Amino acid sequence: MVGRNAFYAQSGGVTAVINASACGVIQAARENSKTIDNVIAGRNGIIGALTEDLIDTSIESNDAIAALRYTPSGAFGSCRYKLKGLDENQAEYERLLEVFKAHDIGYFFYNGGGDSQDTTNKIAQLAEQRGYPLRCIGIPKTVDNDLPITDNCPGFGSVAKYVAVSIREAGYDVASMSKTSTKVFVLEVMGRHAGWIAAAGGLAQEKPGDAPHLILFPEISFDESEFTQRVDNCVSKHGYCAIVVSEGLRNANGDFVADSGLRDAFGHAQLGGVAPVIAAMIKQSLGLKYHWAVADYLQRAARHIASKTDVEQAYALGRAAVEMALAGNNAVMPTIERLSDEPYRWSIGEARLEDVANVEKNLPRDFITDDGYGITASCRRYLSPLIAGEDYPPYRNGLPDYVRLQNAPLAKRLKTDFKLD
Amino acid sequence: MVGRNAFYAQSGGVTAVINASACGVIQAARENSKTIDNVIAGRNGIIGALTEDLIDTSIESNDAIAALRYTPSGAFGSCRYKLKGLDENQAEYERLLEVFKAHDIGYFFYNGGGDSQDTTNKIAQLAEQRGYPLRCIGIPKTVDNDLPITDNCPGFGSVAKYVAVSIREAGYDVASMSKTSTKVFVLEVMGRHAGWIAAAGGLAQEKPGDAPHLILFPEISFDESEFTQRVDNCVSKHGYCAIVVSEGLRNANGDFVADSGLRDAFGHAQLGGVAPVIAAMIKQSLGLKYHWAVADYLQRAARHIASKTDVEQAYALGRAAVEMALAGNNAVMPTIERLSDEPYRWSIGEARLEDVANVEKNLPRDFITDDGYGITASCRRYLSPLIAGEDYPPYRNGLPDYVRLQNAPLAKRLKTDFKLD
Repeated sequence: MVGRNAFYAQSGGVTAVINASACGVIQAARENSKTIDNVIAGRNGIIGALTEDLIDTSIESNDAIAALRYTPSGAFGSCRYKLKGLDENQAEYERLLEVFKAHDIGYFFYNGGGDSQDTTNKIAQLAEQRGYPLRCIGIPKTVDNDLPITDNCPGFGSVAKYVAVSIREAGYDVASMSKTSTKVFVLEVMGRHAGWIAAAGGLAQEKPGDAPHLILFPEISFDESEFTQRVDNCVSKHGYCAIVVSEGLRNANGDFVADSGLRDAFGHAQLGGVAPVIAAMIKQSLGLKYHWAVADYLQRAARHIASKTDVEQAYALGRAAVEMALAGNNAVMPTIERLSDEPYRWSIGEARLEDVANVEKNLPRDFITDDGYGITASCRRYLSPLIAGEDYPPYRNGLPDYVRLQNAPLAKRLKTDFKLD
Repeated sequence: MVGRNAFYAQSGGVTAVINASACGVIQAARENSKTIDNVIAGRNGIIGALTEDLIDTSIESNDAIAALRYTPSGAFGSCRYKLKGLDENQAEYERLLEVFKAHDIGYFFYNGGGDSQDTTNKIAQLAEQRGYPLRCIGIPKTVDNDLPITDNCPGFGSVAKYVAVSIREAGYDVASMSKTSTKVFVLEVMGRHAGWIAAAGGLAQEKPGDAPHLILFPEISFDESEFTQRVDNCVSKHGYCAIVVSEGLRNANGDFVADSGLRDAFGHAQLGGVAPVIAAMIKQSLGLKYHWAVADYLQRAARHIASKTDVEQAYALGRAAVEMALAGNNAVMPTIERLSDEPYRWSIGEARLEDVANVEKNLPRDFITDDGYGITASCRRYLSPLIAGEDYPPYRNGLPDYVRLQNAPLAKRLKTDFKLD
């Protein structure tokens, strides 16, 4: 008996550890080569499936696949492409089944956030309706940490570690300069809708007075005059003030603070950059010397300082997805189940995709201190294990020796092209 | 015979490895405790000496001093305070000698950039004029890498490594997203006057097509239309474009590009942030989706990804400074002498402070490619060894376990206060 093929694709914003999940999928598949013949990857995510732009992973060496574990970004390309509902654009789903049939895909693995889990669930439904044998397994991934059921989302722990390490280091820097120079430092981090990443910065503060002194969360509406007063108090007390601000910070009207300030020379509003807006407020109201940083993609790509816990979980979830499929599961997603906080123990659980899709896990209000500028002990208890451990990539010539796969195209088997919406 | 005391201070912008030099100074002094009684540090640099705000390092444990080797920033505080010329403000220099006499300082170690070496030289001259026995040794430090004679400046190699690692990682990220999302990424790095740090980003490009695709140097006047044309070509060819831009980028008129664009809601020019200005140009002329990051202090504080070469050299220079003083030298600075490029071999040399002061080492034009957007093979040969090797700090709870010294004040011995200019 020859096995059927598996399809694997990466979706949405990439992370430092999504390739660790890919590594887990492909290694587990290779260990079960009697059941899974080949892992076919979608080039640029689901677009690769729709357009039959497929990658033959069988030609990649075991070493190259092992190197995915320590290579950030999406090795096969990812995409921001949301499939519509089954009712709205059934043609897309039909096309997917057509491609899967042509390449004898029996297993569908989709590595992404909430939308991707929803897509996976819909594909499972359609395949069942059509009587096409397909086991559909979602693999969680998102720096936003907003998927329900799972203890956390692979990708988040490494961003969290990057942000906590960075604000600690910058805090040390500013502390030593503050007598005659910079007194306020602002670090902007990701999190358009939720303050998980900003909260992680709070882990750097282990003793009173440590950086960061203030965290600005998207969940807490921004009060400029109260904020600048707090900065002033902090500088009076500690000599300096280190601030973490979420890109999603909003004012009392619900507008993004990032959109409120900067204009180009022609008066057009500038997208992005809440840090310079905050810094300008401090300059204007307090006259203090400031510096600001915007970490942007550096934070989610920073495999060099990835959390070991995060890498291990991402890898384990990739393997677990294959094992679940082989065990006959369908329309499920492996999850991380937390067994204890300290010592942190976890195991792999399982969630039904219908319970995951379209549910967002928000930062609980009781993870933010009453004053709105810090994290609570329960938040710390939750976050701390997620940044634990280091998992350094190998280096060559002083630089991380990340892998580039060959990504050889698989010959097309369909005569028809598919036009993306 | 009881030894005399040494004075040590940190000056100017701090780095990931200036404390490694402090570690070298104090460890070497402790090994020679018959000659050097105590290392007295200036709190906040030379200001500590002027105001007799001194730190007693003798109460710090050997473990705490050893931990300086892996702790970024200035452990005793640094300052941006430039002593005037001897003719302009001799009172400052007289005050320094007065404080040194009161605390029986026989050795003066000043850890900083060009201005600090000049100050050290002037103090040596005045001490000699006054017949006060003082051995003055400069210790090089600057992320700007602009000191002459020495092969490179401690602090630079670690920033260089951070920038090269970061643009490689962000490049991987953007490459995997570019099909449907971000196509252009701009990373702003330090270097107000010279492109050393921007050039270091070029090390990440080991093969044609690797990030970064374009580097914008302060040495090359910025031509917007040529630049956007190159971005367009790069995106057509590679699917994306990763750019490193120096904060010191200037247009044809010699104005900083950072100052040219952004205004706050009231129309005031915003200081800092050339990356968003560049990104806005790309958006406007090419309509491509972009992201930008400003690394700011993160880059010079990033001890977590410090260059091992840089750490070893910073430490060795600290030790060498003490050894030179003990050997009877005065008005000199230990340097790094490059013995060979590959394998990189180096030893400690010696420069006279008068030859170091007020001389800036610029990025040679032949380190930049003819087209002005990349680095040459000779630049790569020079830079590559400086980022070689990793030297990870210890971690606790997922975070670097950096040391905070007690920094206990030494009792004052003078009745007079000194008012800073």
